[in-house]
Amino acid sequence: MALMTPEQFEASLKELKPRVFMNGQRVPDILANKNTRTVVEANKASYAWALDPRYKDIMTCFSPLVNEVVNRYTHVSASNEDLVKKAEAGTFTAEMLGTCIYRCVGYDAFHALASTTWEMDRDLGTAYHPRFLEYLKMVQKKDLSAAGALTEPRGSRNKKIVDWPDPYLALKIVEKNDKGIVVRGAKINISGAYASHELVVLPQNAHSEAEADYAVAFATPTDAPGITYICQYSPYSAERDLSDDPEELGNPVFGQRETAMVIFDDVFVPWERVFHCGEYKYSGEMVARFARTHRMTCGGTCKVGFMNQIIGASKLIQEFKGLDRVSHINEQIMEMVVLRETGRACGLAAARLGQEEPPGSGVFLPDEVMGNVSKLNICQAFWRVMALAGDIGGGLVVTMPSMKELKNPEVKGFVEEFYSFGSDEPTENIMKVHKLLQHWTAGQHGVGTWHGAGPPMTQRIALQRAINLEHEKDLVRNTLNLKKKEKQAEGK
Amino acid sequence: MALMTPEQFEASLKELKPRVFMNGQRVPDILANKNTRTVVEANKASYAWALDPRYKDIMTCFSPLVNEVVNRYTHVSASNEDLVKKAEAGTFTAEMLGTCIYRCVGYDAFHALASTTWEMDRDLGTAYHPRFLEYLKMVQKKDLSAAGALTEPRGSRNKKIVDWPDPYLALKIVEKNDKGIVVRGAKINISGAYASHELVVLPQNAHSEAEADYAVAFATPTDAPGITYICQYSPYSAERDLSDDPEELGNPVFGQRETAMVIFDDVFVPWERVFHCGEYKYSGEMVARFARTHRMTCGGTCKVGFMNQIIGASKLIQEFKGLDRVSHINEQIMEMVVLRETGRACGLAAARLGQEEPPGSGVFLPDEVMGNVSKLNICQAFWRVMALAGDIGGGLVVTMPSMKELKNPEVKGFVEEFYSFGSDEPTENIMKVHKLLQHWTAGQHGVGTWHGAGPPMTQRIALQRAINLEHEKDLVRNTLNLKKKEKQAEGK
Amino acid sequence: MALMTPEQFEASLKELKPRVFMNGQRVPDILANKNTRTVVEANKASYAWALDPRYKDIMTCFSPLVNEVVNRYTHVSASNEDLVKKAEAGTFTAEMLGTCIYRCVGYDAFHALASTTWEMDRDLGTAYHPRFLEYLKMVQKKDLSAAGALTEPRGSRNKKIVDWPDPYLALKIVEKNDKGIVVRGAKINISGAYASHELVVLPQNAHSEAEADYAVAFATPTDAPGITYICQYSPYSAERDLSDDPEELGNPVFGQRETAMVIFDDVFVPWERVFHCGEYKYSGEMVARFARTHRMTCGGTCKVGFMNQIIGASKLIQEFKGLDRVSHINEQIMEMVVLRETGRACGLAAARLGQEEPPGSGVFLPDEVMGNVSKLNICQAFWRVMALAGDIGGGLVVTMPSMKELKNPEVKGFVEEFYSFGSDEPTENIMKVHKLLQHWTAGQHGVGTWHGAGPPMTQRIALQRAINLEHEKDLVRNTLNLKKKEKQAEGK
Amino acid sequence: MALMTPEQFEASLKELKPRVFMNGQRVPDILANKNTRTVVEANKASYAWALDPRYKDIMTCFSPLVNEVVNRYTHVSASNEDLVKKAEAGTFTAEMLGTCIYRCVGYDAFHALASTTWEMDRDLGTAYHPRFLEYLKMVQKKDLSAAGALTEPRGSRNKKIVDWPDPYLALKIVEKNDKGIVVRGAKINISGAYASHELVVLPQNAHSEAEADYAVAFATPTDAPGITYICQYSPYSAERDLSDDPEELGNPVFGQRETAMVIFDDVFVPWERVFHCGEYKYSGEMVARFARTHRMTCGGTCKVGFMNQIIGASKLIQEFKGLDRVSHINEQIMEMVVLRETGRACGLAAARLGQEEPPGSGVFLPDEVMGNVSKLNICQAFWRVMALAGDIGGGLVVTMPSMKELKNPEVKGFVEEFYSFGSDEPTENIMKVHKLLQHWTAGQHGVGTWHGAGPPMTQRIALQRAINLEHEKDLVRNTLNLKKKEKQAEGK
Repeated sequence: MALMTPEQFEASLKELKPRVFMNGQRVPDILANKNTRTVVEANKASYAWALDPRYKDIMTCFSPLVNEVVNRYTHVSASNEDLVKKAEAGTFTAEMLGTCIYRCVGYDAFHALASTTWEMDRDLGTAYHPRFLEYLKMVQKKDLSAAGALTEPRGSRNKKIVDWPDPYLALKIVEKNDKGIVVRGAKINISGAYASHELVVLPQNAHSEAEADYAVAFATPTDAPGITYICQYSPYSAERDLSDDPEELGNPVFGQRETAMVIFDDVFVPWERVFHCGEYKYSGEMVARFARTHRMTCGGTCKVGFMNQIIGASKLIQEFKGLDRVSHINEQIMEMVVLRETGRACGLAAARLGQEEPPGSGVFLPDEVMGNVSKLNICQAFWRVMALAGDIGGGLVVTMPSMKELKNPEVKGFVEEFYSFGSDEPTENIMKVHKLLQHWTAGQHGVGTWHGAGPPMTQRIALQRAINLEHEKDLVRNTLNLKKKEKQAEGK
Repeated sequence: MALMTPEQFEASLKELKPRVFMNGQRVPDILANKNTRTVVEANKASYAWALDPRYKDIMTCFSPLVNEVVNRYTHVSASNEDLVKKAEAGTFTAEMLGTCIYRCVGYDAFHALASTTWEMDRDLGTAYHPRFLEYLKMVQKKDLSAAGALTEPRGSRNKKIVDWPDPYLALKIVEKNDKGIVVRGAKINISGAYASHELVVLPQNAHSEAEADYAVAFATPTDAPGITYICQYSPYSAERDLSDDPEELGNPVFGQRETAMVIFDDVFVPWERVFHCGEYKYSGEMVARFARTHRMTCGGTCKVGFMNQIIGASKLIQEFKGLDRVSHINEQIMEMVVLRETGRACGLAAARLGQEEPPGSGVFLPDEVMGNVSKLNICQAFWRVMALAGDIGGGLVVTMPSMKELKNPEVKGFVEEFYSFGSDEPTENIMKVHKLLQHWTAGQHGVGTWHGAGPPMTQRIALQRAINLEHEKDLVRNTLNLKKKEKQAEGK
Repeated sequence: MALMTPEQFEASLKELKPRVFMNGQRVPDILANKNTRTVVEANKASYAWALDPRYKDIMTCFSPLVNEVVNRYTHVSASNEDLVKKAEAGTFTAEMLGTCIYRCVGYDAFHALASTTWEMDRDLGTAYHPRFLEYLKMVQKKDLSAAGALTEPRGSRNKKIVDWPDPYLALKIVEKNDKGIVVRGAKINISGAYASHELVVLPQNAHSEAEADYAVAFATPTDAPGITYICQYSPYSAERDLSDDPEELGNPVFGQRETAMVIFDDVFVPWERVFHCGEYKYSGEMVARFARTHRMTCGGTCKVGFMNQIIGASKLIQEFKGLDRVSHINEQIMEMVVLRETGRACGLAAARLGQEEPPGSGVFLPDEVMGNVSKLNICQAFWRVMALAGDIGGGLVVTMPSMKELKNPEVKGFVEEFYSFGSDEPTENIMKVHKLLQHWTAGQHGVGTWHGAGPPMTQRIALQRAINLEHEKDLVRNTLNLKKKEKQAEGK
Repeated sequence: MALMTPEQFEASLKELKPRVFMNGQRVPDILANKNTRTVVEANKASYAWALDPRYKDIMTCFSPLVNEVVNRYTHVSASNEDLVKKAEAGTFTAEMLGTCIYRCVGYDAFHALASTTWEMDRDLGTAYHPRFLEYLKMVQKKDLSAAGALTEPRGSRNKKIVDWPDPYLALKIVEKNDKGIVVRGAKINISGAYASHELVVLPQNAHSEAEADYAVAFATPTDAPGITYICQYSPYSAERDLSDDPEELGNPVFGQRETAMVIFDDVFVPWERVFHCGEYKYSGEMVARFARTHRMTCGGTCKVGFMNQIIGASKLIQEFKGLDRVSHINEQIMEMVVLRETGRACGLAAARLGQEEPPGSGVFLPDEVMGNVSKLNICQAFWRVMALAGDIGGGLVVTMPSMKELKNPEVKGFVEEFYSFGSDEPTENIMKVHKLLQHWTAGQHGVGTWHGAGPPMTQRIALQRAINLEHEKDLVRNTLNLKKKEKQAEGK
């Protein structure tokens, strides 16, 4: 069987030696560092679920490519039903982790590559598609985790890419030889790559002829020579570094979303891992296909799962306080449910209305309009859910003392009394739920959700392109029995 | 074949003699009165579409009950696929008419009756379900239009129904005999019943034992002795009455939604048309099943079609004014599209996630949570779409002179000049599109959409009942590794 | 004393013979026509209040110009206190009428003229300001009503004004002679001018040198030769025309806002009434000063008054239904109050923070930022208030039968029963309050409020010009102790 | 002169020895601890401004009580003009600090005490008011900082206060003797008390006769024996503890808002500092007066200042990225300005419409309705401003690496390149502005703003009490010429 155990996954990561920096220092071992460890744990969970009878239907599927059951996160959707399952998996992983499953960007990148390599081969006679399928078979058989990378640092928006003086602001091919290519540049805001086996790289943008060297897509081991990771470091990172015990923290095991800047300092990629190389006319479509896929993921699936954690925590606090029947709180929780279900509906619609793209390719992608609609809705909804949960959680969500006070004999009694609300629930539980709400409402999730899969303006641009209103105009013409333009007919 | 032609439909209506009042006077002929005529036209269109090769797939389906193709609006959904088709039909009819298809309440009432008669028979040993199926077969074979009726005038909310002094505030059985029952009371806000063949009547509410006489559901010809209709009369009604030509009006043929109060002044209903009679414990569920069905209809389907007309009109005005490329208008139209697609997604999700209800009955109903979510969303969305369309339409939407000025030689030239915006579109067309937007943004649609299928509070109540958050609470307990309640274990 | 009685006002209107068309026909007598009569009544009320001890403080003030007490609507604000009183008068008139006081645009135009004529004289050595003051003295002494006119039909937005082929799309000077000027063109969406003595005309826009003939402001009697009014005609107009008794209508005496297109077909204006004539560089500022004044009026004052009517009607219906203690309705009414008070606060702030403009002119104008903010807020707020009131009013607000049914013996009893809600309030009262809510929530007010004083985009543009963020940037530089740009210093 | 220098303030704090715990440990010196130091700095700034010619008008005023210029934060408003100045000071301090001025709760508590002690004396013949004035004179003459405390931990909402088993959930008098009283209990969410000289304590709630011991208000030195502070500890606290240099942090000097739980473990208060002691009928009004005062502060003043920092940072980032002319960003900044100005307008209206309360007392309080409206608006507005700023800031706001990377030779070059956006601004500046936005959009401010001065439900309750709609109902009765209730007249 293709599936690794979680232990095998952890062992496999130990073989890799990525060059990682965080908080001004080298991270010698990502399995040991408290913050990078959260990424390892999240990916590791996806291996456990694939073998768990309760979850294997959602986390695995049969791959005709290798004639075996594989982890769903390595499978390119071949039907609307696959897309629906993909959506359900996105919600499941998010609600179990309370953070990113760091394999989703790679999963979505596989879709963009499968579709666009097929198209390039059809149009240009290239042989990228079989090459990509060979690569994907390897990923499936070895049951590898793949991260994905798209966003680049970029320079002045007032200049063209080729005129940016600094060398790393955009990723490009700096050398081609008979064995492969050498790339230089960087990707930013990359979720959890250092704890994956593979990094799948797409272009950031559509490209013009002058930018042909930037039209590049490939896969690389995450510890390939020349790759450096500079990790984010937030107040939540500091809090974890200072903690005595993960259970002091809002999301003990899996933490907040961890990202890194990834620098490619002349990284060699052999040809069998290169899937796009100079065919600049196809870069835009490749990115757009990734975007529509990833917007369904971010808009209609994982945030639904996150909201489940927030709703659950809000409900528990309501109950701890003995406020089960207070109607304005029930209304607030109901509003969260409405926002969640609206997100879920849009995600499912994106999957159900998805199409084979391009026709004949065998690759199914979510519906463009619905994918973008789901992301636009969830951006607004998530801030609103944060506000509502913050209301229910109360000021204590942000004025909490350290959980360490529960071990401080001088104040322990007071803290236990004040957080008990007169209930018989262990105070530690109550404080932990407040800490979880702090994690959701007073941290990186508002801004992070907003920008994941691109800020709203990118969805608006995609929608402007996708919207066609001829049908709607015809309805009006018909309802009103509008005349033909006679003036025009008269040659005016 | 079971399907009538539109001409046959009109002829069949001529046979009926409903007692109708409007604007203080008797309406002797609903086919001739300008306002009631709009209802006739709307229902008539549904007969035309059923025979039109372009639309027959959406407007008809095969009924195993009569082994024939029937009008979809007489078919009880037997699968999720049926529910999806039902949703699509709701959008189609709305966008073609720009007003209600007056058969939808009856269609949804059929669902509630099919489901609940089956359940009553199973639980109580009654024989309502076969009786209802016989009735439905007759409706299908004769291709009848059926309106539905639920809402009642009601008395003081501070008293019980049985204590209301006035006799017509709620519908009840006043006599039972071996041939049937006699009912007295009224229904209000009933859409277009006088131009249907049949009126399907459900209870308004759940009922207690003391209210068993109010637990009644039945079907009746719309002109049965004792039935009186008092029609709404709005500024739009007056405008139509005063018009010289329907093309002066915002929705020339189909008008605004027409409703009436329906009084049952000791109306006899034979037993073969009685489907619920005193089994008060089932009234609530019957109403709830109607509500979840109708909320999908009103929330996720017909308003999507209405929005298409509004979007089309807004786009045309943008183009008439030469503002095609003005970004803030494109943004507004895109916002309307997002709201429309969100409505559509929720409607589709309600259909896709619908269930057989009760299991074994063969009747499929939309998902309760999604049905209510779609209605809650569309209430807000519709007002917003009105505001956006009003912005694009401009002040002229509400300050228009009469279209009659186009025939007034003293001012015709000025009006033509002012509404041309310098375009080569016939001014009459431009004014008509403004008039259509007036119809949508300065008439009854805001409030009407809000209250159709019940005001938001009814959806909130339904959601409060439907929501169960144990799964969400468990997620949090698992994420935080919460302790068992030891205090409780210690007997505190 | 300068003040006319209401009877004198009506008599004075009889002297005027404006050329008015409505619904395809000439209106021979605006005092007799049911729809134009509403405008007469609204303006007439302002004469009554000025003499009423209860209201004279708000409706009158002392004018140093004529050394007498005058109607406030003829007085140019000379202090922040005057602006506050002006704001309060805007709310008072609106809540008393439930429609426009048709003198407010003229009142605001006086402010723009007083300020800009002073500025032109200072800069250019013209003598417009004393001429304008002489005119204003005449208005004050004779206690005349003045309407104002700004908006023009306009042609294709893609062409320049001077390239529009049609002659009336914009107002311009077509002749100058020693006695005065002759103007041609049109104004649209003009509120109630035909029932005023005077019409004060401003340019629509900033103008370029090539458009100097369009840079014109003047005052004219409303029945000057060459002026034609083409009145709006809405469903509400038709309803009033068809009514037997004004008390059948939502706003019996004062109706909905009435506007007209005003055509100037070579209208002569003597020099003593010309206040701007070719000084195109000042047209933009004149319009901007009108706009900031009128946006305070529309944004922060009259809509506050309208909301009072809506809130009052909603509260009465709540009480009629016996729902006084239902918390979600109280919440909705409270939300309306919050929106109303927010509008009021912004209006008051615009008045309080207003400035003498230009310094030295003695003319006080509302604060530019706050004036625009108040209008932006109220646009959104008004639609929301409509939605909330529609919720409380219920479906009956739009499904009401005619009030004539109360006189129809065949159905009167039913209608009375159904609208009584079991209360002891006369049913006629209850129906009237519903009819009032229909007037507010299912008519022209949503779109009308949105566009009054310009659609939101015009406020946004004004704000973009008015906003300066250097202070805010400095705060950040200081908080963060930002370095000077060294790179730049090095000459990069 | 009464005013201390900042140095004198710091020296005076050294004299105090409050018992403070944070992160599980005793804080031996609040001037040295990195996190408590931020509170010291914020209060210290208020001493510096009072002596600074640029700011002394806003930070000081003349006190008739001591016949001297005093710090404004020790002065009880005696006019609407004072209230306006108070509002302006609230904005000023907030925009300068980017966090709380920790003296504002005490300042507002002085208002509640001045008003209610006067009222109690008038009604009951007590002598609290002169006692309070003596205390206030001392505060003014010594130029002391006073914090305020209201909120209590509270027990089960389903039980009465007197039935809560735990001793510290609410503050109460446990002993009275001839020298004073002894109090036991706790206050929570108390802003910055340990770095003030004085703590002014009010009741949490209205109280019943059985709760007379909870009806207590007093002032105490912050280090009185028996007082213990348990400080909040957030991710931001940990980040500060781990920092090498404050300039790595989002708000280097003043930090996020710092609060503590304050335990009163049998604290003695001499009679001359007791201002309310058992007169339970007055507790509710005292709290309500505090609330209306503090809601103006939190709703209409300090958040306006916070928004200025956010707007300034957003604008700088827009400029750094060379996106000055991108219209959708300008629109977003304009939306923030509209929200800010709306907040400011409501705050000013609360001040301008404030009243002497009770009449004769000489104490001016903000308008109840406007105070609550301003808070309700700002709650929603602040989350929205966070979302908008997060959009402009971009994903980097939450994915930033540590500022320490700028000193890490292995990665410094990359980080500098990526955050330069091709501009000539020093990268350190750019990163700092992002860090400031992280502080505002990904920390405690959303929830904190929501709950400061009570969550929205408390404002809603206050508004429900304050709203009277008789005027609005009369307007409707008048507009519609409603009949008297004849039915009632007939004795029904």
